[in-house]
Amino acid sequence: MRHFESLHQFSVNEITDLLQLADKLKSGYRPLMGQTFAVNLFFEPSTRTKSSFVMAEHKLGMEVLDFQAETSSVKKGETLYDTAKTMEAIGANMLVIRHADDNWMEELSGRLTIPVINAGSGKTEHPTQGLLDLLTIYQEFGTFRGLKIAICGDIIHSRVAHSNAQALKRMGATVYLCAAPGFEDDSLPYPYITIDEAVDECDVIMLLRIQHERHEGHWHIAYYLQDFGMTKDRESRMKNHAIIMHPAPVNRGVEIDSDLVECKRSRIFKQMENGVYARMAIITKMMEEWGMYHAPAFKKYQITANKGTVANM
Amino acid sequence: MRHFESLHQFSVNEITDLLQLADKLKSGYRPLMGQTFAVNLFFEPSTRTKSSFVMAEHKLGMEVLDFQAETSSVKKGETLYDTAKTMEAIGANMLVIRHADDNWMEELSGRLTIPVINAGSGKTEHPTQGLLDLLTIYQEFGTFRGLKIAICGDIIHSRVAHSNAQALKRMGATVYLCAAPGFEDDSLPYPYITIDEAVDECDVIMLLRIQHERHEGHWHIAYYLQDFGMTKDRESRMKNHAIIMHPAPVNRGVEIDSDLVECKRSRIFKQMENGVYARMAIITKMMEEWGMYHAPAFKKYQITANKGTVANM
Amino acid sequence: MRHFESLHQFSVNEITDLLQLADKLKSGYRPLMGQTFAVNLFFEPSTRTKSSFVMAEHKLGMEVLDFQAETSSVKKGETLYDTAKTMEAIGANMLVIRHADDNWMEELSGRLTIPVINAGSGKTEHPTQGLLDLLTIYQEFGTFRGLKIAICGDIIHSRVAHSNAQALKRMGATVYLCAAPGFEDDSLPYPYITIDEAVDECDVIMLLRIQHERHEGHWHIAYYLQDFGMTKDRESRMKNHAIIMHPAPVNRGVEIDSDLVECKRSRIFKQMENGVYARMAIITKMMEEWGMYHAPAFKKYQITANKGTVANM
Repeated sequence: MRHFESLHQFSVNEITDLLQLADKLKSGYRPLMGQTFAVNLFFEPSTRTKSSFVMAEHKLGMEVLDFQAETSSVKKGETLYDTAKTMEAIGANMLVIRHADDNWMEELSGRLTIPVINAGSGKTEHPTQGLLDLLTIYQEFGTFRGLKIAICGDIIHSRVAHSNAQALKRMGATVYLCAAPGFEDDSLPYPYITIDEAVDECDVIMLLRIQHERHEGHWHIAYYLQDFGMTKDRESRMKNHAIIMHPAPVNRGVEIDSDLVECKRSRIFKQMENGVYARMAIITKMMEEWGMYHAPAFKKYQITANKGTVANM
Repeated sequence: MRHFESLHQFSVNEITDLLQLADKLKSGYRPLMGQTFAVNLFFEPSTRTKSSFVMAEHKLGMEVLDFQAETSSVKKGETLYDTAKTMEAIGANMLVIRHADDNWMEELSGRLTIPVINAGSGKTEHPTQGLLDLLTIYQEFGTFRGLKIAICGDIIHSRVAHSNAQALKRMGATVYLCAAPGFEDDSLPYPYITIDEAVDECDVIMLLRIQHERHEGHWHIAYYLQDFGMTKDRESRMKNHAIIMHPAPVNRGVEIDSDLVECKRSRIFKQMENGVYARMAIITKMMEEWGMYHAPAFKKYQITANKGTVANM
Repeated sequence: MRHFESLHQFSVNEITDLLQLADKLKSGYRPLMGQTFAVNLFFEPSTRTKSSFVMAEHKLGMEVLDFQAETSSVKKGETLYDTAKTMEAIGANMLVIRHADDNWMEELSGRLTIPVINAGSGKTEHPTQGLLDLLTIYQEFGTFRGLKIAICGDIIHSRVAHSNAQALKRMGATVYLCAAPGFEDDSLPYPYITIDEAVDECDVIMLLRIQHERHEGHWHIAYYLQDFGMTKDRESRMKNHAIIMHPAPVNRGVEIDSDLVECKRSRIFKQMENGVYARMAIITKMMEEWGMYHAPAFKKYQITANKGTVANM
């Protein structure tokens, strides 16, 4: 049985199914049967990924337990496995985990009886972000075949870049990378182009967040926007139908001119909206694979009425 | 469409309606239709205001998402607008925000499609506390006309003082201020009196919290109670029907003798109880104004029954 | 009316009833009537105890409010009583409290109108852990009479030792203690034996967590396992039917060989599972004693239908 560790695990058909399920959930859904418990274990700060999962879980009718790594036994040196196993023991039906280690999934592999969803692992993977990005492109173009997509920014430090590039290629897109000096990752097998080439040629420009503290003296942050970012001038030169994406949080005025964050081409807030449905699709798929989708362990809304009869629900 | 930024926005009739709605909710209420999401964004520590909102939201049948500013993207320098817009994008139906800036509401004004409730802005406004204070007085006296009300304590640093004084005056009360040296705020157009004058003359004594670190050497904290606070002697001199209020948390033995916190005149814990109903009234009003009160986007309790029929709810 | 402060308060019959109720809940349960609010006030870090309570509360259909001591008014110096009273005022039906003071319950005694459950008080008491430990033994042996039980480890600093030893004795077991030099507590009236004697003689070995920073130079942590812990060799010498327990979090390789954490004799994760049911039993008992079990203050799932009729639930 699979955890949701990486988009690499899923075939092109399976990814297409997930995209279509997410799209369908957007126009209507209903809660899971029974009382199911989602436990979110975030060992790194997160606003949007965590909130997005919490929202997805609530929309599916799950009960949500949040784990604050800052106020927890992890401070006492407990292993991730023991924490996860504890949550399984107390009745979690699913775990969502973000952790700074690159390979934390290996510690859990084959050792749990409930599915785990990777909400971020070090700088290697962020597959639910990957799926929501694919969903946003799929909704726009209906296909990936023939699309030219540039991933631009802090490639070396970005788990989004790693998660997305291979999936996009497998789905049929042509992937380009674009990075300021010091941000390249030579291990990725995609051609580098300049931001201006990307602007002229590509259907999708996926900007990445710059982490100020990480650039290495090759350039000055004050000039990043002008030299490597999405200026108003560059936006005006993009193809008619081309779109701008960013996983957020955005550094306004660094990766992108502040005025462009909500411009017509921008899909930035649409990506966030899509994140909820992408995650609902992933949760649904995992719960189905693990045989828990219809688990009526406890009928959440079944109440014994005052007179001793059971409501027929 | 209005956010709930300040009591200043609301007419005397509207405030009266809110008070009557809160009073009515106290004797019975029912949850909102459909699945609605409240997101609480607290960027400052809070026990009672946040718990009070969470309780009000639960009582109205809302799903509650809590945002911990300490473990969030705000650390990464995201703007308040981008955080709020993210919550809107993922499906929030309402935001409750507390933030240390005096004018954070301006950043959001006219830019969101969901209502925002001000749960505290710097030292300028705390309008939901204002409404619960009005509610407590309204329940006691049935009117504001003819009442003499003294606001006593750290006037200069208190957002409660600013929120309440104008509203009380507009509702028909006569407002006095009372402050130890260094705590006066000369921008407020109300007469200063001594605590002893307040005790002798007023129907309501609203004590404010002293923030130890902020007094400026004009007096010593050990003598504050005796010189400026509510001692047992002063309590005994109050008018028969007069009441004592305090927004809490209380510094026992500073603003008020510890033995008086739950004395007969004290409405301190009643204020807390009222806070839930005042906030339920505010949420109800906002959801109605924004057309979301009956939003059946998703019928929370609609469950597909085992046999494939839909429960008739 | 009692709070749940200590197992000492409960008779042998009452404890047996709680164990049987917990066992029964394990095979099926239903939510409390009406909308009831559990408020968890944890002033010390906790993963498993807090998560276990949250799970128990959700399973009983309660609404759960979590209080983060780190982001709260406690920082502003509020007393525990005032915090608890505030929660009562805003509508809590039950409080669960963990606090570092040994005797925090005394501050609340007789002053609240809702039940309080002790989730840990300094180093004196942890009675819900006590009950889940009893439950685990009861499920194993069906009785306590005639059992030899050794509590091994950091006796002096452990609230589990204090909670458990007396209860086990009252239920009919013979209790031994076993401690490395510096970890003894001479105030407890039970004989000390060596870990090897315990292994040879006892039916239950209850290991306690070693708090690295607290040992006092009598021995070196690197040799703790060999000299005082549960090695594979010791495990192999235990009686056929004997079991190993630990309240967790485990220091793998210190109190116990890492390979034994999930060995056949280990009940460590079963204890965690039992914790949820033990706490559900305690909550149920408290809510019954305080007359809130059937409180239909608000029927949670009663919804007014669109056409103005009320769903018959």
